[in-house]
Amino acid sequence: MRIDIITVLPELLESFLNHSIVQRAQDKGLVTLNIHNLRDYSVTRHRTVDDYAYGGGAGMVLMIEPIVNCLEQLKETCEYQEVIYMSPDGDPLQQSTANELSLLTNIIILCGHYKGIDERLRQHFITREVSIGDYVLSGGELPAAVLSDAIIRLIPGVLSDESSALSDSFQDGLVAPPVYTRPADFRGMTVPSILLSGHQDQIEKWRFEQSLKRTKERRPESGSQM
Amino acid sequence: MRIDIITVLPELLESFLNHSIVQRAQDKGLVTLNIHNLRDYSVTRHRTVDDYAYGGGAGMVLMIEPIVNCLEQLKETCEYQEVIYMSPDGDPLQQSTANELSLLTNIIILCGHYKGIDERLRQHFITREVSIGDYVLSGGELPAAVLSDAIIRLIPGVLSDESSALSDSFQDGLVAPPVYTRPADFRGMTVPSILLSGHQDQIEKWRFEQSLKRTKERRPESGSQM
Repeated sequence: MRIDIITVLPELLESFLNHSIVQRAQDKGLVTLNIHNLRDYSVTRHRTVDDYAYGGGAGMVLMIEPIVNCLEQLKETCEYQEVIYMSPDGDPLQQSTANELSLLTNIIILCGHYKGIDERLRQHFITREVSIGDYVLSGGELPAAVLSDAIIRLIPGVLSDESSALSDSFQDGLVAPPVYTRPADFRGMTVPSILLSGHQDQIEKWRFEQSLKRTKERRPESGSQM
Repeated sequence: MRIDIITVLPELLESFLNHSIVQRAQDKGLVTLNIHNLRDYSVTRHRTVDDYAYGGGAGMVLMIEPIVNCLEQLKETCEYQEVIYMSPDGDPLQQSTANELSLLTNIIILCGHYKGIDERLRQHFITREVSIGDYVLSGGELPAAVLSDAIIRLIPGVLSDESSALSDSFQDGLVAPPVYTRPADFRGMTVPSILLSGHQDQIEKWRFEQSLKRTKERRPESGSQM
C-alpha cells in the first residue's frame, strides 16, 4: 500500500515515520509512506501556501493552487482510489473505515492547517473527508498520522501477531475485556482468580462477559455499529 | 500548565514536542511538557515493562509496578489534578473535555501500548480515561499528542490570534463555514460573490447560515452537545 501525505509541517510527521509500526511496515516492504511538503508546490517566489480568507476574519486559508499542483503531479505517478482530507467536520473515523481503507492500494491524505483549505478543493478534488473526532487541533498532521496508523496496522504482516489485532477493541463490535499481568498480588490488589485457574473455556467465557458488560457501560449506544 | 506523558515509545513524541504549537507554548513559558520513558521505572534488570496476560492470549500487557513507580515519583514533585489514561474505551474526547482540561495546572497522561495496562491501574490509580475515537491504534502515543494539542492550543496566549480559536469548529456547537482565498477564479471555479461584496453584516449572516446547514448535514445528532 502506498500513502502520500501532503502537509505544510512535514517535520511534525518525522518521528511517526521513523519510530512506529510505520517504520516496521516500510522495512518489510508492505507500505510506502511519502510525505510531501506543500511549500514545494507553491506558485510564488516566497513559497506561500496560504492567504487571507475572502470576506475577512481571523485565520489563514490554504490556497487551492499549490494543492492542485501537488495532486496533479502525484496523479501522474499512479492512480489513487481516494484523496482524503482530514477535517474536524469530516465523516467520523470508525474501525470500519480503517478496515475499508486498508484494502486500498494508493491513497492521498491532505492535512488541513490554519482555518482549513479553500472550499473549491473540497468540492472538486477531495473524494473523502475524515474526522478523527469532534474536537479541534492545530492541524491535520496528527489526524493524518492517526488515520495512517489505524490503517497500516491492519495490513496483513505488519503486526507480528495477527490474532492480536483481531482481539482488539471494536474489531468485533465490543470493547476489550480487562487484562492483567504479573505480579498476581500487588500491595494487596489481586488478579481475578478465574484468570489463574487454567480453565481456558471458563476464561474465554469470563472475557466475553466482561467485554459485553464494559461495552454496555462505556458505549451504550454502540455494540453493533462499531 | 504542566503535562507529564508516560510512554514506552518516547521517540514517537519527539517531533510533536519540537515542531508544533507545543514548542511555541513552551518557548513562551505557558506550558511544560515532560516525556517520561516507562523503561526508566522498570523493576527488572532488563528494563522490562510488559508481560504476558494472565489467562493467556495474544498481546502483551503493561505491568503495574513500573507505572506505579513512575506515578509515585512524579507525585512527589507536584500535585496532579488528573491522571489520564488514553484508551480506546475511555470517555470520548470532545471539545468540552479539552476546554475543561485546559483550565488545570498539572496533569499526567499515560499512554497504553500492546494489549493495554494492568486493570488494577485503571481501578486504583487512573482518575480519568479518554478515547480520541472508536478505532484502534498501535499505542497511546498519538492519542496523547492529540489530547495535548487540543488542550494546549486553548491556553490563552498560545495561539497568535485568539479569535481564531473561538471561531473554530465545535467551539460554539457548530462546524465551521466554508472558507475561500485567492484567486477568486481558479479554472472557472469561483468564490461565492457574497464573500467579495464587502458587506460585512451579510457575510457574517451567510457564514452563520452555512455553519448551521453544514452542522445539520454532517453532525445531525449534535449541535448542542459538542
